[in-house]
Amino acid sequence: MAYPLTLGTIAFLLAVIWGRPLINLLRRNRIGKQIRIEGPSTHQVKTGTPTMGGLMILIPILIITIALNIGNLLGFNLIGRSILVPLGVLTMFGALGAVDDLRGVRRKPGQNNGQGLLARFKFAWQLLFSLATAVTLHFRLDLRSIALPGVQEKIEIGLWYIPIAALIIVWFSNAVNLADGLDALAGSMAALSFAAYGVIAFLQGQSWLVAFCFTIVGAILAFLWYNAHPAELFMGDTGALALGATMAVVALMTGQWLLLPVVSFMFVAEGLSVILQVAYFKISKGKRLFKMAPLHHHFELVGWSETQVQQRFWLVSVLTAMLGVALALI
Amino acid sequence: MAYPLTLGTIAFLLAVIWGRPLINLLRRNRIGKQIRIEGPSTHQVKTGTPTMGGLMILIPILIITIALNIGNLLGFNLIGRSILVPLGVLTMFGALGAVDDLRGVRRKPGQNNGQGLLARFKFAWQLLFSLATAVTLHFRLDLRSIALPGVQEKIEIGLWYIPIAALIIVWFSNAVNLADGLDALAGSMAALSFAAYGVIAFLQGQSWLVAFCFTIVGAILAFLWYNAHPAELFMGDTGALALGATMAVVALMTGQWLLLPVVSFMFVAEGLSVILQVAYFKISKGKRLFKMAPLHHHFELVGWSETQVQQRFWLVSVLTAMLGVALALI
Repeated sequence: MAYPLTLGTIAFLLAVIWGRPLINLLRRNRIGKQIRIEGPSTHQVKTGTPTMGGLMILIPILIITIALNIGNLLGFNLIGRSILVPLGVLTMFGALGAVDDLRGVRRKPGQNNGQGLLARFKFAWQLLFSLATAVTLHFRLDLRSIALPGVQEKIEIGLWYIPIAALIIVWFSNAVNLADGLDALAGSMAALSFAAYGVIAFLQGQSWLVAFCFTIVGAILAFLWYNAHPAELFMGDTGALALGATMAVVALMTGQWLLLPVVSFMFVAEGLSVILQVAYFKISKGKRLFKMAPLHHHFELVGWSETQVQQRFWLVSVLTAMLGVALALI
Repeated sequence: MAYPLTLGTIAFLLAVIWGRPLINLLRRNRIGKQIRIEGPSTHQVKTGTPTMGGLMILIPILIITIALNIGNLLGFNLIGRSILVPLGVLTMFGALGAVDDLRGVRRKPGQNNGQGLLARFKFAWQLLFSLATAVTLHFRLDLRSIALPGVQEKIEIGLWYIPIAALIIVWFSNAVNLADGLDALAGSMAALSFAAYGVIAFLQGQSWLVAFCFTIVGAILAFLWYNAHPAELFMGDTGALALGATMAVVALMTGQWLLLPVVSFMFVAEGLSVILQVAYFKISKGKRLFKMAPLHHHFELVGWSETQVQQRFWLVSVLTAMLGVALALI
């Protein structure tokens, strides 16, 4: 564990140091967040807070992992080639998110006023990237099975692996994005998920994956330094899409992806709350299940402070992450 | 690890469920905190928030650990007898803290106006309890050595163990108490320290100590549910003295107590900031090293929000806890 913890610390320090210049750069270029007018009214004060903070997380991870790969080429045994897959996913979804963030920032009159990419267009790209990733996981990394808690043998699912894996990746990139609505919320929960899958990978002897997971944890913790309430920086789609998709890929690579809804329970709950809200609204012809979706806004409107929602969601995530690790141990 | 994680979850659930009635009970009996007028002026709004929330942490730990001991008497092998030592420390310091909290609440005019026990009186009791604990650790648990990172052999220090152990216990019960000045600060950092020593105990095969540590972590996490900013409940001296002293005893029982200033770095920093501030003030005849001590108030006055100070102190604690575990692994 000393190697991954060291990488995590390096990622933290790199990201913390590069955080302040990044915030200044984003401010100078007016990469400020447009706050949806449909959200809670208390959130309007957040307008103009720099977004695209995901860059603060992604760039240190890229630098470290690419440096390790260069070290490999020089003859050191620092990281496995398989890590290039989640690294590629991080980059692809980060780039898609960055385009979305930039489109959301540039406000030309009449042209999708600060709302980012069209939803259909964004979803098509997510689906395309996810399918490409699923195909790579299946044919290059030879992944084709699912681990069940308590069952020794992994169960082969053949080509079914591809659509299932693609769906998981799409789901999680959107789920983390939906959860990214309160200061420190998505970041603190994502750090836990990666730490939990890092521990699961460790227990299974996948040491390169452990190293990659803890590099991400370190970078996210540094981001949380600046994202603490009141946030000086948001991760934006750049961070959320990349972290969500990468979380799914890491889970797929451990084989323990059936535990994702346990380990990352609150992300699933956030995603489901939106679906349930919309479905209930349509079926009941206008009634609402939650005061507002995603779930964190519901609790804000119930009267919890932003910090209370974040801290309580995080506490639930600690328990579910522990439960997930315990289930992987059976 | 499944057993300690289960105990932690039970402690969390017990504490969360019993939290709401406890808060109502404290409110009804007007066990509200007096806020020091010397602190930052923004803290005056906290006046009257229920204190003695430490009971929420201590009682579930006592119930669970005593239940396990009763299970032992019935022939099950659930917990080691050695755990009675940290459990006794938790109870003694918790009781001392409770007396202090109650004295701080009852405001009879002219009688130490909401300030708790006299410092000298409190310190004498802390010293007495710590010495008794150190003697017990030395003569009953046969502890007499110190582990150095990277050195295989533990170094015997004979009777020197007693004064050193006593000092560590006194120091940490006060350090956690000093850190207990912002919502979620002492609790979130203490949970990390106990988790880190739980992992260290796990790596050394001290499974009962692992169970005890994670029971405490679970109970603290539940307390944090109610302690999230704006706090509905403070742990008070009841919680802070007990957690600090028990943290020291747990570290002593692992033998890795030289790592305490690493694992619990921010607690040491909080304690040192007060000593340095007072010493510098005396030497310089009236100048201040920090804008205000303990350290967390300094950063508040620099302009960080309460949540930013808490989250950033916690992030530093994550890194130092990881470093401590890594050093124990060498």
